[in-house]
Amino acid sequence: MAASHFGEKVYIWAAFYQKSQAIDMKTTSQSAHQTYIKQHQDRFLGELFDLLRIPSVSADPKFAPDVRRAAEYIRQRLLEAGADSATIHETNGHPIVYGERIQDPALPTVLVYGHYDVQPADPYELWDSPPFEPVVRQTKEHPEGAIFARGACDDKGQAYMHVKAFETMMQSGTLPCNVKFMIEGEEEVGSDNLEIFVQNNKDLLAADVILISDTGIISNTTPSITVGLRGMSYVEVEVVGPNRDLHSGRYGGAVANPINVLCNMIARLHDEKGRITIPGFYDKVTNLSLDDRKAMHEVPHNDDEFAADLGVDGLQGEEGYTTIERVGIRPTLDVNGIWGGYIGEGAKTVLPSKAYAKISMRLVPDQNSDEVTDMFAKHFLSLAPKGVKVAVRPHHGGEPAVIPTDSLEYRAASAAFEECWGKAPVPTRDGGSIPIVSLFQRELGLDSVLLGFGLDSDNIHSPNEKYGVFNYLKGIETIASFYQHYAGMKK
Amino acid sequence: MAASHFGEKVYIWAAFYQKSQAIDMKTTSQSAHQTYIKQHQDRFLGELFDLLRIPSVSADPKFAPDVRRAAEYIRQRLLEAGADSATIHETNGHPIVYGERIQDPALPTVLVYGHYDVQPADPYELWDSPPFEPVVRQTKEHPEGAIFARGACDDKGQAYMHVKAFETMMQSGTLPCNVKFMIEGEEEVGSDNLEIFVQNNKDLLAADVILISDTGIISNTTPSITVGLRGMSYVEVEVVGPNRDLHSGRYGGAVANPINVLCNMIARLHDEKGRITIPGFYDKVTNLSLDDRKAMHEVPHNDDEFAADLGVDGLQGEEGYTTIERVGIRPTLDVNGIWGGYIGEGAKTVLPSKAYAKISMRLVPDQNSDEVTDMFAKHFLSLAPKGVKVAVRPHHGGEPAVIPTDSLEYRAASAAFEECWGKAPVPTRDGGSIPIVSLFQRELGLDSVLLGFGLDSDNIHSPNEKYGVFNYLKGIETIASFYQHYAGMKK
Repeated sequence: MAASHFGEKVYIWAAFYQKSQAIDMKTTSQSAHQTYIKQHQDRFLGELFDLLRIPSVSADPKFAPDVRRAAEYIRQRLLEAGADSATIHETNGHPIVYGERIQDPALPTVLVYGHYDVQPADPYELWDSPPFEPVVRQTKEHPEGAIFARGACDDKGQAYMHVKAFETMMQSGTLPCNVKFMIEGEEEVGSDNLEIFVQNNKDLLAADVILISDTGIISNTTPSITVGLRGMSYVEVEVVGPNRDLHSGRYGGAVANPINVLCNMIARLHDEKGRITIPGFYDKVTNLSLDDRKAMHEVPHNDDEFAADLGVDGLQGEEGYTTIERVGIRPTLDVNGIWGGYIGEGAKTVLPSKAYAKISMRLVPDQNSDEVTDMFAKHFLSLAPKGVKVAVRPHHGGEPAVIPTDSLEYRAASAAFEECWGKAPVPTRDGGSIPIVSLFQRELGLDSVLLGFGLDSDNIHSPNEKYGVFNYLKGIETIASFYQHYAGMKK
Repeated sequence: MAASHFGEKVYIWAAFYQKSQAIDMKTTSQSAHQTYIKQHQDRFLGELFDLLRIPSVSADPKFAPDVRRAAEYIRQRLLEAGADSATIHETNGHPIVYGERIQDPALPTVLVYGHYDVQPADPYELWDSPPFEPVVRQTKEHPEGAIFARGACDDKGQAYMHVKAFETMMQSGTLPCNVKFMIEGEEEVGSDNLEIFVQNNKDLLAADVILISDTGIISNTTPSITVGLRGMSYVEVEVVGPNRDLHSGRYGGAVANPINVLCNMIARLHDEKGRITIPGFYDKVTNLSLDDRKAMHEVPHNDDEFAADLGVDGLQGEEGYTTIERVGIRPTLDVNGIWGGYIGEGAKTVLPSKAYAKISMRLVPDQNSDEVTDMFAKHFLSLAPKGVKVAVRPHHGGEPAVIPTDSLEYRAASAAFEECWGKAPVPTRDGGSIPIVSLFQRELGLDSVLLGFGLDSDNIHSPNEKYGVFNYLKGIETIASFYQHYAGMKK
């Protein structure tokens, strides 16, 4: 699912950019954490590898037993790390792991959210090593090695940092507050059951802040924190023509071909200026001031380099907006999958009965995913010609979100970066979506701190997903540091 | 492949229609044939079932051993039926079975063409019984039972009628001429190697007429003979965007999405009037006179019934032409398959690197398939926007063909129908393509007689392909009758 997303080359909402001096302040706790992490780093990696070997693909029912195995694995490690309790909560889908360590009800409480499910690894043949057999290889961005595996970054590697940061603080005697863990197994398929769980367990989940590592940083020399996220509307569409597959020679030209029709309908979802044609689609889109838009471009970005990295000879998008704006502050519509007719080897002259597509829209403040899904469905149905029946099935949605940088939580996260990375993080806006952020704001009244450590080049949702060994270990240290600063500021 | 096609509801070139009185003329040979067929009909069916059990899908390499088994099966049955010799000819692809019975070089020679390969049976789940386990069930069109299996009609059932008609004449002492059999295994993938075989074996294949059963009749009460065929151009297109699958949240809106692009390019292949936009596409299309077009509509056809049979609420096609014209005398373009991105269960927000489609065009006299393929490629490439690379790969082509009804061969076929069905056949034009008909005209200088017995409702190329038991047995009788009339007229 879209739910993961990092700071990236096209990410930065520089209006928030705050220059900050590197601070050389090694605290006692930081020193203890560093020592502990160094001593146990091989085990920390080995445990993550064991988790990565479990193919917990939530989207595909055939992996359901593996998804459960991953949940059980997390539960056991939480108990070993020092949780008072850790339990598996059943849902109508995959289970949720909940664990907690309550030191003193008077202390502030951090609620950690993460997910142990992963994206499908298809197409397997594009992986350089099997997606569920983690290996460490050096890369340009990760000279100290990167862990290659589906979920290495999104989100097993990042979620597991929290378990190990918790252990580190428990063993170092530095856990300064209470901590609750909620690690779900359906983030990649829309978190529908998490929403129900949150609604039904507000007391259990009572906390002061939510901490999530499912985003990224600009680079290992330019740390950043995501403060803006796009929302999402995701639908599957079906175009049905004749009641059976037909011979294209005998019927072609006289009967609407569902593939041709679907292509035509999809083509009509954008106009010639790259704008989405759904009536009302842009009505609620927050338009930034020219100054704010200008400020977005103070960060380094180069269209030619961006295109060269992707191997394309040109970029494409909504007229009147730059690449940074197209990905950061503008809503978009992409077909994520399409299929119909004969797709095997060779030639078959079928005029198929049906054609399908998966289509997602990224939303920006103040669009609403349910409203957009309704608008899409109405518009898409209106594009259907005679001779076909069209169905639109909503998959799941998520709302756009913005996190204030002047909050105590943001400042604590910023201080943790300063302590562990030697420089203040850049606040960024991200093109991706984490629907649960707006869910938590709505249901629990809590802001989320997006303390993610992935890189844009980590290939999440793609073949050869990876996560830097440096990022994994430094992330554990930074999370432990966050707790110290957060508890200190809350006093 | 398109290569099979029948007379059908939208087929009739009534300019050729000749009213004919039913003739009651039971000849001695017909009587002998009927008796022999009746005595051996269970074995005739059983042998066909054995052939249908071999999944000889030529398009899919994994079935290659089965394709060869089917060839060997045909070879053995030809020898048993009375062939002087029958051999397997290797090609660069699947083999060709050749067999012959030369009674007297002074007699005329009939060259029988057929194919033992079949279309892929996908999607298997839409079959009511397994595609390679033939069963007989009653249907509305086939009250005496129909054989359900892939290839039952196209073309194993129809090709095998010739082997059994040959046996019938051999055993009845009625074979009035020489006969040669050329049964290939690549008709459904374009007959590329057949073309080479024909070019290299002109002496071996020397004959007076070619007899093919790979078409159909209007109904079991209205026999017909196909006299016009559409040609074909078939291509596979590939649209490549970024060099890897991307996260749609992080890149969507800034990078051309190959699926959206492919849809847009496909949409632009037709204009709003349903005309194909490829420059020059219609230049060589033979335009029929208004009288000829009017004559086409003297046969029964009803758009509402046609649509109701297909379960659609309207028909679609080139403006200014009727359904009969759209399928019979106008060239068309259909997408036969499309795929790209994530097509598994659930939601995945990938912006894929690649998207593909299979596209076929049906051609009419005097279009040329190579020229049309070139025009398509040039036009399609010109539709590609910046940010993608496009490839067009030709699969195979075939030329349109028209067979004269005043020929001796046509008259012999017509007489065979009169004798066996009690009425003269209607000459029809068919929307499908049999590329080998024009190949034979070009390379061997021979006209083909399309003596096919399938029905429009036989679902060739679709799930639940079938062939009437009546059609199979009556077809054997009609073929044997053709030989008598043909030899008699040639004297």
